[in-house]
Amino acid sequence: MRYAVLGTGIVGRTIAAKLASLGNEIVIGTRDPAATLARTEPDAMGTPPFATWNAAHPTVELRSFAETATLGERVVNATAGTVTLEALNAAGSANLAGKVLIDIANPLDSSRGMPPPLNPVNTDSLGEQVQRAFPDARVVKTLNTMNCRLMVEPDRVSGTHNVFVSGEDTGAKKQVTEMLVSFGWPESSVIDLGGIETARGAEMLLPIWLRLYSTLGHTDFNFHIQGAG
Amino acid sequence: MRYAVLGTGIVGRTIAAKLASLGNEIVIGTRDPAATLARTEPDAMGTPPFATWNAAHPTVELRSFAETATLGERVVNATAGTVTLEALNAAGSANLAGKVLIDIANPLDSSRGMPPPLNPVNTDSLGEQVQRAFPDARVVKTLNTMNCRLMVEPDRVSGTHNVFVSGEDTGAKKQVTEMLVSFGWPESSVIDLGGIETARGAEMLLPIWLRLYSTLGHTDFNFHIQGAG
Repeated sequence: MRYAVLGTGIVGRTIAAKLASLGNEIVIGTRDPAATLARTEPDAMGTPPFATWNAAHPTVELRSFAETATLGERVVNATAGTVTLEALNAAGSANLAGKVLIDIANPLDSSRGMPPPLNPVNTDSLGEQVQRAFPDARVVKTLNTMNCRLMVEPDRVSGTHNVFVSGEDTGAKKQVTEMLVSFGWPESSVIDLGGIETARGAEMLLPIWLRLYSTLGHTDFNFHIQGAG
Repeated sequence: MRYAVLGTGIVGRTIAAKLASLGNEIVIGTRDPAATLARTEPDAMGTPPFATWNAAHPTVELRSFAETATLGERVVNATAGTVTLEALNAAGSANLAGKVLIDIANPLDSSRGMPPPLNPVNTDSLGEQVQRAFPDARVVKTLNTMNCRLMVEPDRVSGTHNVFVSGEDTGAKKQVTEMLVSFGWPESSVIDLGGIETARGAEMLLPIWLRLYSTLGHTDFNFHIQGAG
């Protein structure tokens, strides 16, 4: 399977590396590939420059958002939630049409102090915004409720814990579930919340997640719905 | 211990009955006791009239919000979140001052369609509103993240699962934790999220809770933070 991963930050790299390690072809997208490759210093969070990471993952090809979306058979949105719609517009509606679009982003607005509030929230969600803006894409919200290392290595947290999927397209959710199983998630740990509107609830887990991170001092924890069967 | 339980709906009754069964003295508060006692029909949700319940729990005394708050050494807010501030104003600031005020309500606004959105949300919470409005009360947000039967009977859900506490007053949180332990919660299942601002995250669990309720078809489930230690 050829995956387009939009976003070259730590989340995009982690997903891209995992998908590549499973034998998929990966194109990773950024607004300006030359600028992304030109960076030589770690960012403010200490993340190494993309070129350093790419040298260690040479099969992952860096392209523009539009070229990436064109090449991918499935698309993963791993951009920051606040720039997701802009990135997807650059990717191009026609290049997303008919494709499974896996939205793993959270609309955390860091410009409004810490911990960052969500925007949109409560009566809307990023997942819904994406589906409305790209009605021909088969949007599935998933994986946004945990740290990116855990997304692709669920055994980092022992015991049973859950990953949620939300979306209008049952076939798309089935394909995403198969991807999650390939990452190591037991199929019984995947909870289908329903349509894309249920992304609201999944995104609204972020505030308590951020507090728990602060309280626990690590990211190796996850939500488990005890009693879900 | 003498508890004031504000709110005569299913949540207030469930908490009052449990606290009474544990040997506490209980006063339960409503806006207009005569009107509450005069009802003879089940409400729209099928909840039996208060008088029927009170006949089965004769040690629980019904009073006005103000009398209830005056008599209680600890106060439980079990009113609907949309009327909580009004009920607490009726209870009276002076009658709440210095007391542990256990806020188990959720600000779900049912006037705005189903599932009900939260109001306030994201950059504020009901717990914070209560603490701001009653600065001399020792507010602890807890138990709002589950069905009321589970609040007082945690073994309804097997395995480990969690209850959260948020509040500014460490001593108040300790007293609330002791109350939770008396309900059957293992102390290790109580997660202290931090100050009252963390009530935002706890209240924002409601949207996914409501979806899970809809998906699972029952209320015997709860959040478990796997990996919290």
